[in-house]
Amino acid sequence: MTEKAEPIDVTARLAGYVAQARFDQLPPAVVREGTRALLHIIGCAIGGCRHPSMDITLRALGPFAGAAQATIFGRPERTDVLHAALLNGIASHVLDFDDTHPDTLVHPSGPVAAAVLALGEHRGASGAAVLNAFVVGVEVENRIARSVLPAHYDVGWHLTGTAGVFGAAAGCANLLGLDAQHTTWALGLAATQSAALREMFGSMAKSFHPGGAARNGAAAALMAAQGFTSAERGIEGKTGFAHVTSTTVDLTRAVDGLGERYDLLGNTYKPYACGLVIHPVIDACVQLAERHGLTADAIDRIDMRVNRYALELTGKPRPTTGLEGKFSIFHSAAVAIIDRAGGEAQYADARVNAPEVVALRSRVHAEMDPQLSITAVHVTITTKAGARHAIDLEHCLGSREAPMSDAQMHAKFRALAEGILAPPRIESALAALEGLARAASIGAVLRHCAP
Amino acid sequence: MTEKAEPIDVTARLAGYVAQARFDQLPPAVVREGTRALLHIIGCAIGGCRHPSMDITLRALGPFAGAAQATIFGRPERTDVLHAALLNGIASHVLDFDDTHPDTLVHPSGPVAAAVLALGEHRGASGAAVLNAFVVGVEVENRIARSVLPAHYDVGWHLTGTAGVFGAAAGCANLLGLDAQHTTWALGLAATQSAALREMFGSMAKSFHPGGAARNGAAAALMAAQGFTSAERGIEGKTGFAHVTSTTVDLTRAVDGLGERYDLLGNTYKPYACGLVIHPVIDACVQLAERHGLTADAIDRIDMRVNRYALELTGKPRPTTGLEGKFSIFHSAAVAIIDRAGGEAQYADARVNAPEVVALRSRVHAEMDPQLSITAVHVTITTKAGARHAIDLEHCLGSREAPMSDAQMHAKFRALAEGILAPPRIESALAALEGLARAASIGAVLRHCAP
Repeated sequence: MTEKAEPIDVTARLAGYVAQARFDQLPPAVVREGTRALLHIIGCAIGGCRHPSMDITLRALGPFAGAAQATIFGRPERTDVLHAALLNGIASHVLDFDDTHPDTLVHPSGPVAAAVLALGEHRGASGAAVLNAFVVGVEVENRIARSVLPAHYDVGWHLTGTAGVFGAAAGCANLLGLDAQHTTWALGLAATQSAALREMFGSMAKSFHPGGAARNGAAAALMAAQGFTSAERGIEGKTGFAHVTSTTVDLTRAVDGLGERYDLLGNTYKPYACGLVIHPVIDACVQLAERHGLTADAIDRIDMRVNRYALELTGKPRPTTGLEGKFSIFHSAAVAIIDRAGGEAQYADARVNAPEVVALRSRVHAEMDPQLSITAVHVTITTKAGARHAIDLEHCLGSREAPMSDAQMHAKFRALAEGILAPPRIESALAALEGLARAASIGAVLRHCAP
Repeated sequence: MTEKAEPIDVTARLAGYVAQARFDQLPPAVVREGTRALLHIIGCAIGGCRHPSMDITLRALGPFAGAAQATIFGRPERTDVLHAALLNGIASHVLDFDDTHPDTLVHPSGPVAAAVLALGEHRGASGAAVLNAFVVGVEVENRIARSVLPAHYDVGWHLTGTAGVFGAAAGCANLLGLDAQHTTWALGLAATQSAALREMFGSMAKSFHPGGAARNGAAAALMAAQGFTSAERGIEGKTGFAHVTSTTVDLTRAVDGLGERYDLLGNTYKPYACGLVIHPVIDACVQLAERHGLTADAIDRIDMRVNRYALELTGKPRPTTGLEGKFSIFHSAAVAIIDRAGGEAQYADARVNAPEVVALRSRVHAEMDPQLSITAVHVTITTKAGARHAIDLEHCLGSREAPMSDAQMHAKFRALAEGILAPPRIESALAALEGLARAASIGAVLRHCAP
């Protein structure tokens, strides 16, 4: 713990930003990226809406829920704002397919979107108002994360929960039109609810983190709006969030460039349904297969030079389940060449055990190259006919340097929603979400995002 | 942070205790103290039920609440189990009049009682089942606190919230009849929601801590009951609760004497509506006034030797509001002699400014004696007639060594409920609560605790 409270009045300054931020001040690029991020996270939530953790939560907490005020993406049920925030937050993260800010490794959209969409729907807010609240929430959330890294993460906190609650509170405070004093209280109430342990990784509780953050952040703003007070220095105080949860506090990062530089513009989206370290392998293999029309039986061997984390984290040579497949660069390379994709279908149990995939997998060889960045890979495919096709990929698809195109974002949405929404509903949802910034009612947009 | 995870499987061992603990195993003294603690905390919640923070919370979250399943003590409204847990938890703490465990300074009853009473009422549980769940919750809660003290408190956590959520989860898990595996998940879900910052002291958010703990602990148990998984080592894991929130972890304390030695038996209750360091002063002054029939105008001067914290924390010589009066040993001594009491009435703004109290206050003199314990005081009253009446109090009323009698607990309940429940209802509530262990339905008991 740092010995004394910080001199910077971070809580008040963040509150001042949140209280005055308006949609018409957003640069066009931010409006565009906010629209993409919302479209994307709703797709993730639709894709995750039938996960067992969702059914369990509805069964467990449904008996205590309130009126049908807000959409649960992809599902026929509606529920009250707070439970919708919880459920959509869980669904956003449960496939590990949500967005990631590369500077903080926060998955920024889930906690904020789940809160502001549910609250906006209930209050009849416009698309622009919700989009602005979302942007504001993400800016606060990612800056809070910056200000307590790296010790906060290292000791065991999961930032998507611990910073997420600030983002949800800030977004909802903006949406409710709170002044700076009430927003200060909302941020304080977020601070004193901030929790999420990395120990939960590998269990359903990991996805509970953005869900709980969304629900608690929304409640913080709603309570503050009615005059529920909290500390004035909930973040920077001597026994406030920053110093209690981190020994490496730099609060200048919490307010740096507020309203001028948008962290949201550095956000990234996963094209593939697995950990980020495998993404270069899949991108390179898909590119080679498409470019040269390769089929599995024509290939003699595949040689890869991979970054330092790829073999360590995802070096499983003989996976037998879909989940194990996500930790195998060998499976990922083989299936990417055959299917020219890296979605959930490529990580189904049956696909991991498919004879043609297993056969090609055995001809994949990998060695570590410490010079390569986490977004890079070298792949050489040698055909049985003796041809050698090589690619030297520096920044894989989905990295900040090679963002997914709008068409690729739409394709991901369609794949996630397939079998959950009817095909015409998927197309109407995409059209409605693309028009979000001009929609008079967010509720009318979200009506397309459930059966 | 300790470098490695603890070898003790604390989460599983606590879960094993919670899963097997039954009412018929409780020693009679524990049943008695559990009954006293529940009667007492319900009195505190009734007394706090009209605090502005309660109206604000109802106004803010009421629109999202579910069916009328559970009592809000002292109020005509009913609400769903989770919101009742939140509201009653807030009310239990808002007057700073709740119980305190002297070994940990946790206020143990609020978070646990608010959760198990609301859940028990909804499920039609017996008084014995709820009483057992309450005892189990307090035992887990106070042991969790022991295991992370002192660093956990020193860095800035408020244990009534951070340990309270474990107590609420444990109590509800027991009430729901969960097995050890499901209880392990409930404790893990509690761990990953554990939060409450001391920075909030002095604002409404302080009382939000036991409320949030009650709501979140109940939700943890309800979700675990349906199969929502969490980490197996949520408390002792390398990135679990203990090591993330404390640098002085001793997990043997978390399981020491479980089911054999009951921390609840060391619980203490406040006879006076102010900070504990003033209690010896009030007790001594009331005793002297009663013993010698003293009136204010007969007194020349009052001389006190007080413990080291009394002047430092509560040395305000000329308070002008009720709240300031709580930080003045001078006001407290004067009003105790005149009113022979130290309740909320003695800390009303008007009473602090009453001419007779102000006049006597100016004749109170105090000096610090570093030898005195926090429960001790020496008071000498000199009358205008020249008589000297002295008392050498070692353990004030309400300390572990001089517990409040049942009659005193009832008197405190009556004073707290006055003006909120009608007099016959107050008496029927006391009778019903005294019979709690034999009640077939907790709901029938709690019906007496609201208008």
